[in-house]
Amino acid sequence: MQILTARTALLPDGWANDVAITLDDAGRIAQVTQGAGAATHDILLPAPANLHSHTFQRAMAGLTERRGPDAADSFWTWRRLMFRFLDQLTPDDIEAIAAFAFAEMLEAGFARVAEFHYLHHAPGGVPYADPAETGARIAAAALDAGIGLTLLPVLYSQGGVDGRALAPGQVRFGCDIDAFAALMQGAERIMAGLPADCGLGAAPHSLRAVRPADLGAVAALTDGPLHMHLAEQVPEVEEVQTAYGARPVDWALANMDLGPRWCLIHCTQMTAAETRALAATGAVAGLCPETEASLGDGIFPAEGWVAAGGRFGLGTDSNIRISLAGEMRMLEYAQRLQSRRRAVLADPARSTARRILDAALAGGAQATAQPTGAIVPGHWADLIALDGAHPDLVAATGDTILDAFAFARAEAAITDVWSAGRHVVRGGRHMARDRITARYRATMRRLTDRL
Amino acid sequence: MQILTARTALLPDGWANDVAITLDDAGRIAQVTQGAGAATHDILLPAPANLHSHTFQRAMAGLTERRGPDAADSFWTWRRLMFRFLDQLTPDDIEAIAAFAFAEMLEAGFARVAEFHYLHHAPGGVPYADPAETGARIAAAALDAGIGLTLLPVLYSQGGVDGRALAPGQVRFGCDIDAFAALMQGAERIMAGLPADCGLGAAPHSLRAVRPADLGAVAALTDGPLHMHLAEQVPEVEEVQTAYGARPVDWALANMDLGPRWCLIHCTQMTAAETRALAATGAVAGLCPETEASLGDGIFPAEGWVAAGGRFGLGTDSNIRISLAGEMRMLEYAQRLQSRRRAVLADPARSTARRILDAALAGGAQATAQPTGAIVPGHWADLIALDGAHPDLVAATGDTILDAFAFARAEAAITDVWSAGRHVVRGGRHMARDRITARYRATMRRLTDRL
Repeated sequence: MQILTARTALLPDGWANDVAITLDDAGRIAQVTQGAGAATHDILLPAPANLHSHTFQRAMAGLTERRGPDAADSFWTWRRLMFRFLDQLTPDDIEAIAAFAFAEMLEAGFARVAEFHYLHHAPGGVPYADPAETGARIAAAALDAGIGLTLLPVLYSQGGVDGRALAPGQVRFGCDIDAFAALMQGAERIMAGLPADCGLGAAPHSLRAVRPADLGAVAALTDGPLHMHLAEQVPEVEEVQTAYGARPVDWALANMDLGPRWCLIHCTQMTAAETRALAATGAVAGLCPETEASLGDGIFPAEGWVAAGGRFGLGTDSNIRISLAGEMRMLEYAQRLQSRRRAVLADPARSTARRILDAALAGGAQATAQPTGAIVPGHWADLIALDGAHPDLVAATGDTILDAFAFARAEAAITDVWSAGRHVVRGGRHMARDRITARYRATMRRLTDRL
Repeated sequence: MQILTARTALLPDGWANDVAITLDDAGRIAQVTQGAGAATHDILLPAPANLHSHTFQRAMAGLTERRGPDAADSFWTWRRLMFRFLDQLTPDDIEAIAAFAFAEMLEAGFARVAEFHYLHHAPGGVPYADPAETGARIAAAALDAGIGLTLLPVLYSQGGVDGRALAPGQVRFGCDIDAFAALMQGAERIMAGLPADCGLGAAPHSLRAVRPADLGAVAALTDGPLHMHLAEQVPEVEEVQTAYGARPVDWALANMDLGPRWCLIHCTQMTAAETRALAATGAVAGLCPETEASLGDGIFPAEGWVAAGGRFGLGTDSNIRISLAGEMRMLEYAQRLQSRRRAVLADPARSTARRILDAALAGGAQATAQPTGAIVPGHWADLIALDGAHPDLVAATGDTILDAFAFARAEAAITDVWSAGRHVVRGGRHMARDRITARYRATMRRLTDRL
């Protein structure tokens, strides 16, 4: 048992002063009281889940910003480079990169992550001796870094909506539904060895990569959350429209049992009617604003989504620059660039960053199916401490603390992060940063000719 | 005299290994040779100028992200809050905030700054006993922080293009052209006390705030660079169109002697024809992508500008989040969100970040009228050192170093920054960070009820 005290904390009803949070030995919040005396921390916030990540892509950050013969000037040319890159990764590489990305996520203020894991097989598409080998590596990395993991094994079984075979770059992902069921069994064994705040879901990759008949079968293989990429790119919308006679979101609404179990990633290409109808299902929109900008996906219709009561959360996806503050900021700034207004996602009661963080906390909890996202008894102790002496926080109270975090420089005020009570970041540094970074560096040195 | 050596450096002809740079005692580069032995630094880059800043706005960062009674949901409501805020600032506050912003700029990799300085008078619009008091405070802050300063006293003489009087929030800026001439004389005296890499220019604030007849008079008062806000907001375009019968850029092209002396800030509202014609003048477009996103200005037509041979540089403007990497990234990401392509500003020979940095180096030199922007003899020794052991740089060579800097996390790899040979940042920290930050904190505590 431990007790954390804060001068200011963000509770479900809003900001409160002199708060004491008691953690039990299982990493849950046991009690929250006010009126405590001397505080151990200046500011305590609930730490959200990162609801969408492909950890291995962290190692490509900064390597695909060129034109020319090795072009990366669209999502699709970038994907070709990504396929070429991942074809060199060994299980050791996958684990080293994941541990590094997880440590960065914790330092950025994410307490947990939903890893959308599709890199299943050895180069050439040959299954490993243990078919769940790479999932085990992701789990080992999460255990090492101390992050809460929701593992989402991915079904990826075709090269396009016409049912064509996988391209050479895709064969490391490939499963039919039976092989996927075996992968899910392996993943269950793996996750049984992780802490109680870790869990399992499943992810049909996208309407491009999964046969319609298999969508229901994936959902039947788990009680956990279901995640799928949806309506990210214009060519994808056109491909689905041509093959299925409907736009992706319209098709999914008509043919899938969408609801709160689902987290639909990106949704950057929706009509106003699709936006309203999808929001009404209670599914979470999994927004990855920094990656969506990097890949030229487009701008999520956030105002229409929120007006329709839609739920959303934040993910770091390609992990090109892992930053909770950065994802919050890019979400709002993309809206401003489009609408030419400010404070687009604020409401009369909450500032811009407060409303975005509130959504990310609830959406992240729903998308990982974990009791988290608020400082209340029974929830995992997923917490961020901020240093009130940071220059951007000296004059900040209430919601302006979060605005300073997302829009100014108070991201650097993060001192401590706890994931289900595991105190993994202190003094702004992950406890094992040096060791995890040294391993990542060695991996990167081996991969130098990869692109 | 000192000698810096680097394993890799960005020279005018491209990346070179084993480079030695000799600095003379005046802070200029005296000699550049290759084939040096053991290196003192891993990577050395030329450090650009920050071509647009209003330092006092740094203190508002994070405080204007709300709706409701104290709305800040458009550029114009934000401007009302900004006017209310600045009305509380004393000369001491102005100096403390400027020193803090300058130290942050240096830590971010900017070696110098063009300060667009319009806060001339005491509250109520009363001139200080020394009319150049606030300019002297900016200069003192620059000297304290060790940044190269180009001071741009601003002429601000009307409340709108109809010639109306200044609003109460604007009276601290107000000058007629005669009072401005006196301010310029005071500024000359002030700048004579600064190092040789500091200089003076002038800035008619905007077509909104300056009478057409005064534009030529401002230009005649200095041999230095001329800066002006232009075509930032749609309502501004409409106001100028109504009053003058032409859009702002069209009007400026027809009525001003535009050319390489000019730096035109924002230009986010231009037609394709305006873009081509303005680019052809040789003026620098002063882009401030993070502020332009924050204020909902819109997206600069960068592709058309660059295709027409247009020059540009980068500025931090409102200073809401001072970051060279952040400005580079937001410039490119706004283009990607609009065009739905990647690597928009790359060309076949240079990566995205390389091409942006090349432009920012040349544009910043032109906009400050200083010999800087390249590692060549005769230029100021404006330099950035990066730690090659940063995880994002371990596998990076050539242009990917800059892509990792702008798009991944290698901003944190900055170890050292020199401004005209002044070695002001070491180990990633400004040498006087603690002292300058303590003073800024005290200022912020005094200003707590300001918005």
